[in-house]
Amino acid sequence: MANRLLKHFLPTAKISAERSKDILLVNPTVSGEREYAERSSLSAFSYSGTYVFSQSALTISEVDRFRDNDLINWINLGGINKKDVEHICELFNVHSLLVEDIFSVGQRPKVDEVDGVLFCQLNMLYYNEDECRVESEQISLALGKDYLLSIQEDDTRDVFDPLRLRLNIATTKLRQRQADYLLYSMLDLIVDNYFLVMEKLANRIEAMEDEVIHNSYNQSLLQINLLRKELIILRRNIIPVRDLIGGIIRSESSLIEERNLKYFKDINDHIIQAYELSENYRDMVTNIQDLYINNVNLKLNEIMKFIAVLTCLMAPATIIGGIFGMNFDIIPYAHKHYGFYLAIALMIAIPWGMLVMFKRRNWF
Amino acid sequence: MANRLLKHFLPTAKISAERSKDILLVNPTVSGEREYAERSSLSAFSYSGTYVFSQSALTISEVDRFRDNDLINWINLGGINKKDVEHICELFNVHSLLVEDIFSVGQRPKVDEVDGVLFCQLNMLYYNEDECRVESEQISLALGKDYLLSIQEDDTRDVFDPLRLRLNIATTKLRQRQADYLLYSMLDLIVDNYFLVMEKLANRIEAMEDEVIHNSYNQSLLQINLLRKELIILRRNIIPVRDLIGGIIRSESSLIEERNLKYFKDINDHIIQAYELSENYRDMVTNIQDLYINNVNLKLNEIMKFIAVLTCLMAPATIIGGIFGMNFDIIPYAHKHYGFYLAIALMIAIPWGMLVMFKRRNWF
Amino acid sequence: MANRLLKHFLPTAKISAERSKDILLVNPTVSGEREYAERSSLSAFSYSGTYVFSQSALTISEVDRFRDNDLINWINLGGINKKDVEHICELFNVHSLLVEDIFSVGQRPKVDEVDGVLFCQLNMLYYNEDECRVESEQISLALGKDYLLSIQEDDTRDVFDPLRLRLNIATTKLRQRQADYLLYSMLDLIVDNYFLVMEKLANRIEAMEDEVIHNSYNQSLLQINLLRKELIILRRNIIPVRDLIGGIIRSESSLIEERNLKYFKDINDHIIQAYELSENYRDMVTNIQDLYINNVNLKLNEIMKFIAVLTCLMAPATIIGGIFGMNFDIIPYAHKHYGFYLAIALMIAIPWGMLVMFKRRNWF
Amino acid sequence: MANRLLKHFLPTAKISAERSKDILLVNPTVSGEREYAERSSLSAFSYSGTYVFSQSALTISEVDRFRDNDLINWINLGGINKKDVEHICELFNVHSLLVEDIFSVGQRPKVDEVDGVLFCQLNMLYYNEDECRVESEQISLALGKDYLLSIQEDDTRDVFDPLRLRLNIATTKLRQRQADYLLYSMLDLIVDNYFLVMEKLANRIEAMEDEVIHNSYNQSLLQINLLRKELIILRRNIIPVRDLIGGIIRSESSLIEERNLKYFKDINDHIIQAYELSENYRDMVTNIQDLYINNVNLKLNEIMKFIAVLTCLMAPATIIGGIFGMNFDIIPYAHKHYGFYLAIALMIAIPWGMLVMFKRRNWF
Amino acid sequence: MANRLLKHFLPTAKISAERSKDILLVNPTVSGEREYAERSSLSAFSYSGTYVFSQSALTISEVDRFRDNDLINWINLGGINKKDVEHICELFNVHSLLVEDIFSVGQRPKVDEVDGVLFCQLNMLYYNEDECRVESEQISLALGKDYLLSIQEDDTRDVFDPLRLRLNIATTKLRQRQADYLLYSMLDLIVDNYFLVMEKLANRIEAMEDEVIHNSYNQSLLQINLLRKELIILRRNIIPVRDLIGGIIRSESSLIEERNLKYFKDINDHIIQAYELSENYRDMVTNIQDLYINNVNLKLNEIMKFIAVLTCLMAPATIIGGIFGMNFDIIPYAHKHYGFYLAIALMIAIPWGMLVMFKRRNWF
Repeated sequence: MANRLLKHFLPTAKISAERSKDILLVNPTVSGEREYAERSSLSAFSYSGTYVFSQSALTISEVDRFRDNDLINWINLGGINKKDVEHICELFNVHSLLVEDIFSVGQRPKVDEVDGVLFCQLNMLYYNEDECRVESEQISLALGKDYLLSIQEDDTRDVFDPLRLRLNIATTKLRQRQADYLLYSMLDLIVDNYFLVMEKLANRIEAMEDEVIHNSYNQSLLQINLLRKELIILRRNIIPVRDLIGGIIRSESSLIEERNLKYFKDINDHIIQAYELSENYRDMVTNIQDLYINNVNLKLNEIMKFIAVLTCLMAPATIIGGIFGMNFDIIPYAHKHYGFYLAIALMIAIPWGMLVMFKRRNWF
Repeated sequence: MANRLLKHFLPTAKISAERSKDILLVNPTVSGEREYAERSSLSAFSYSGTYVFSQSALTISEVDRFRDNDLINWINLGGINKKDVEHICELFNVHSLLVEDIFSVGQRPKVDEVDGVLFCQLNMLYYNEDECRVESEQISLALGKDYLLSIQEDDTRDVFDPLRLRLNIATTKLRQRQADYLLYSMLDLIVDNYFLVMEKLANRIEAMEDEVIHNSYNQSLLQINLLRKELIILRRNIIPVRDLIGGIIRSESSLIEERNLKYFKDINDHIIQAYELSENYRDMVTNIQDLYINNVNLKLNEIMKFIAVLTCLMAPATIIGGIFGMNFDIIPYAHKHYGFYLAIALMIAIPWGMLVMFKRRNWF
Repeated sequence: MANRLLKHFLPTAKISAERSKDILLVNPTVSGEREYAERSSLSAFSYSGTYVFSQSALTISEVDRFRDNDLINWINLGGINKKDVEHICELFNVHSLLVEDIFSVGQRPKVDEVDGVLFCQLNMLYYNEDECRVESEQISLALGKDYLLSIQEDDTRDVFDPLRLRLNIATTKLRQRQADYLLYSMLDLIVDNYFLVMEKLANRIEAMEDEVIHNSYNQSLLQINLLRKELIILRRNIIPVRDLIGGIIRSESSLIEERNLKYFKDINDHIIQAYELSENYRDMVTNIQDLYINNVNLKLNEIMKFIAVLTCLMAPATIIGGIFGMNFDIIPYAHKHYGFYLAIALMIAIPWGMLVMFKRRNWF
Repeated sequence: MANRLLKHFLPTAKISAERSKDILLVNPTVSGEREYAERSSLSAFSYSGTYVFSQSALTISEVDRFRDNDLINWINLGGINKKDVEHICELFNVHSLLVEDIFSVGQRPKVDEVDGVLFCQLNMLYYNEDECRVESEQISLALGKDYLLSIQEDDTRDVFDPLRLRLNIATTKLRQRQADYLLYSMLDLIVDNYFLVMEKLANRIEAMEDEVIHNSYNQSLLQINLLRKELIILRRNIIPVRDLIGGIIRSESSLIEERNLKYFKDINDHIIQAYELSENYRDMVTNIQDLYINNVNLKLNEIMKFIAVLTCLMAPATIIGGIFGMNFDIIPYAHKHYGFYLAIALMIAIPWGMLVMFKRRNWF
Repeated sequence: MANRLLKHFLPTAKISAERSKDILLVNPTVSGEREYAERSSLSAFSYSGTYVFSQSALTISEVDRFRDNDLINWINLGGINKKDVEHICELFNVHSLLVEDIFSVGQRPKVDEVDGVLFCQLNMLYYNEDECRVESEQISLALGKDYLLSIQEDDTRDVFDPLRLRLNIATTKLRQRQADYLLYSMLDLIVDNYFLVMEKLANRIEAMEDEVIHNSYNQSLLQINLLRKELIILRRNIIPVRDLIGGIIRSESSLIEERNLKYFKDINDHIIQAYELSENYRDMVTNIQDLYINNVNLKLNEIMKFIAVLTCLMAPATIIGGIFGMNFDIIPYAHKHYGFYLAIALMIAIPWGMLVMFKRRNWF
């Protein structure tokens, strides 16, 4: 039975161990771990307030056109193909240290300004509902004087689609301003997405709480443990982004226009709120675990008490049976025809009296 | 019985889950969630030291009169109607980023100065005694050179009524000073209100403590959990207001007169005290939970000990019954007529002796 | 019996709830709560290095003499009578915001410089030995260019008596220096008094520890809880005083002479030490609570183990009784005259053997 | 049996105590503890962008050649021989305080600039898979104007081999830049190595988690304790390195070229990530311990419940046996030939009914 | 038995309470508590690079010679005699506030510069092996332009003996440099001594861990509690010394030569390491306590399980005895001559079967 119980505990165990690996094994220095994409898809935008030109499915050799053309250029690379990334980064003067960061896996979100290029690296988060886990995709953004280079890890989903729509409309701020506003729009999009992921996690925390309150005697503990791991991953992505946005605001980089600073401050407000919210999440999960353990203990203790009382209530009957089973010559009522029934009556009456006393003392 | 016990635990469960949703689901970036008011009620004051004019039930088109008229203007909007808010904000040069903040739900309290407008957003707190919960209403305040725009989420209750009275009296400081003093008065009113909410919470914490000490065996744990959630909501509203007030003081904004700084410092003292008080509340609730769990355990352990002792005390009688029930030819006292009673006497005497020994060892 | 036990827990319960109210219900914004004194007693000192003049039982109208007289003036007000305080504060240019602070109840200790007046507000602490609680009396100090105004909440006990003695002696530093040295002397007196209160609390913590170690099975838990509340009140008074003293040192106020700064630094050392000591107190109380719970559990577990062993030891006798009570035709030793005694011997020998085994395994 | 259980706990005990000694006994001031190497092996590189010369198995007297030769010189000393170290340090103007640091054991990683020499001391970490422990080797690096002196504690393993390869290639940055780049390369190598050690620890944490989830009833607690000690040692090495790298970046030392600062910032990113990762490790291990204790308790409680239920289920049979064993003249069914079997049937039926009831209440 | 157990707990109780008094009762403001020494022993050194003169057993009147003599003077006072200390402090211009600090008991370590005198006060720590406790002796150091005044609380042990030896050697740095180097040497000596004390404490922690792992069922809890108190005392001495050394480094006092700053930085490194080490000590002791409580619980639970199983295993025999003791006319096997033995066999076989089942479920 205890085995059966433990089996109830184990179905999610495999996931649990996998997930620990994700948390524990992070090595930013070994870029060799990365599985490079076979090819990367390249697209670009050139725009000013009055003019816009875009091209997708670009080849590497065509990128040259999107440089030094008096327009703002946005080059987007999907999928990290080693040669393509290196080529483009060289073209746009991205320092080799930063290229290493692009190639590395599990890099901590960071901002850095090297040789006139403001480089941001952070993770887009997705929530995989099937496996109940937070997934991340590394996004690298390099802002130069009149260009923005964005490199996404995953070719299949494009985070920045909403921006393409806006870029095609001449009246949007995005078209009116410099490349730093495009950077702001991207960061805003990514941070906003964090809230969507947190919403999903919030739903799961809530469901967990409901379950713990209503029927708490199942594999909740392991699931709470799993949830806690997702929160570790969430927080690990959010906390350094706070430093990142703060770093941009404090950088006084000439690449960021004074009048755009307020937008970055707005993202800052959001990321601080996301951070505080994640603190609340952690508190909630801790509360749920406490509630669960208390509930389980309470239920078990109730059962143990019930059984102890039951065993105790049956003892008097054993004694009475023993008394009238003694081999004395003279046993009262032994020769009365109602003796047996009297004994049985006693066997019922005494526990009954005890029960009444227990009840009166409010033991149930 | 254990089921019955768990039922005692569940009556508040529904509230509990709802409340978690309020804590967990906060998304400042999606303004679409907001249910816009169908219409908003508009009122305005124009005043100087010597002159005062007020009008309520204003229409949007009439607002123009309350601008650039060499007086201090206070425009108050109750209920967030999308079009009205946008119109007025445009009229008073409130930046579109800030308008987004006004529309958003669950925004973290903040202060920001954009294009010569000092913008504060925070929450008025109410305590709903029926449902024992802290409720909040978002207040947005935009301070310009000679006007103050206040936008309240809820049309039905007007937070700022006491100020209207004071504005009608020429000798009050409110009339003598600039719009920043009006801003101070509003913030002061809101922060003072926090203490009223905390007073109600304090009463509930105290009642909870009383209950836990006197009759601790009921649904206290879930109620403590609920209380803890209210405290999370309280603290989430108080903590960023501390940053907000500090931000105004440090802002060195030209909109805040030097001589009025001391008033904001006074609010600062209050909000710090509210913050420290909320820390104490949290400690108290944790203490109460510890006390509760310890009391429940102690009571249960006492019961288990009592039952174990009772069961133990009945064992000797069983043995004696067994002894004299053995089928040996020669059993001492078996043929004496007082044998049976001697056995019964032993059955009573031995447990009695054990009981005396237990008592002497101070086990009860 | 469990009821009786819980009764042991309750005698201090009433105090406990009252004390929580003191901690929880603090409202600095509602000065209406204060019960104003019917009348306040007024006394004053005028002194310089060479001259001293003092008068007690002053009437309000006579205060005028103690202003602008080229001497240092100390006006002391005992008991907060609304009209008197307002009159005097107006006379000495104390800002109305500060007057509000004087009237408020439960104000957090603070320092503020408004319109050339350095205003300090903090609490004198007393230890009420009868009710084992820390009591506080609000002291407001307003330092002007050549005067110090001190306002004490309680008319019946005068904190500053030792200073009067020193003021009458021409050679003391107090007479030689400006009013800021008088302020220092007062703060020093108040902070020194904190240590006396802490000494009393220390004695109580120590007594509690002794009790928990020696006879831990009584109402200790509630008393520890009470003690913890006193520590909350103590810390709430000490922590902001640290900010207060620091604020004076950093204020660079022209009212504080450079050469007197070292005295305020000296108080600073003391208040930091008081703060660290209060941290140690808290740790100690937590340790005592842990010790208590561990001791109670250990004792209870010992009892349960003893009873379980006892019950177990009696089981073999029951079995042997059953064996020889069986109705088989042939039962060994049944017809021997020593059969019965053999059975009894077995009933004693087997538990004896078990006991020896338990002992050898070191279970007792 | 309990003894046997405790024996399961003890096999790793010896390691455990040894390891505590490593953590507890650190004395940076007593250099006498060090066991000096009998001899140290000396090797050197002289290089510029165009020229490279290296020599191993150098004698002390030959070192002179690697000074003030208009090249960049790297002198590497393996094994801390007292005389050799002192001689070389004197030669390169390393201050005697720093020499003391080199000789000391268990020195906290530090950076210091004394008399134009930038001195870094930190530990190389290795993971000993046989004994499952983190081992450290002290590395001292002294950067002068045109030289870098590196002193390794252990002669047998050379940390810096990869650099020798790179130094022989003229086109590497290492050859193009000054000695500070060599310092960077060394620090980078050491910090990168930390991640390898953490990877090994991560594997062990993961294995531990798996074990705790699947078969938790063995010596896990002591092993978790051991793991926690390894984490203390890991963190003790990582945390001050963070200060060290930060110290170099903030030092504004003339020895560090402006253009190389970004490389040190890159190491900074890595060490911060290592630090945060180690925090996560600690959380994970705490989680695992909680899981273990909860699992053990749960399993034990299940067993106890099972046994209590079993004992309870057998009580009715005892009672029935007692009832029909009573010596009344008239006992129902006593003379029926199926009486005995009826009693047995009851003995089986009643527990069966109880079992059904327990099941229905979901107690198993 | 439980009484006996508690007695095991109490032998160290008296020490325990005493020690609490030391921690709790600290009053820096009441110098009256000090028991002044009847007489203090005075010794002095006058030295320069080329000249040295020392005299011990000095009388107060002779001190004058060691002032303003163009040499560096070190005056050392052992034992705090009120009059002597006051006399000497006046002679060397030590401010009366600092004199009060010298007289106070339990003063927090501090550094202060008043009227051209840099004053340090801290505690020398000793480890009393007999009573297993950390003892402290207050050391006050006053550094003037060309003198250093050191005042030790305890006349019988002289901390600074090693310095006397070094002062007699002309080539030591101590002789070559100013009085600030002498101050450094003293602080270094004191801080180094902390590590010796910690080493002793480390040995005790290690022994405690060994004991808890191997035979955990004795008075460990109280001893752990005692150890924790020693750590409180240790940390209380170390933490403010960190501020003290930092204060000297940041003071930019003209009394500290620029070139000597690096020495104070070296002490800083040591005291930070001592601080971090003491954090580790605390963690270790907490770990040991957890281990102890877990071990005790585990052992107790094992015993309870064993007894519960034993009791359960004996129940079937009782039932069988009851079955064949029933008074039915027809009882199977009752008239067979092997009936009795069959019943006994069953009484052994059934528990045996149960035992096998338990074992197979891995319950032992």
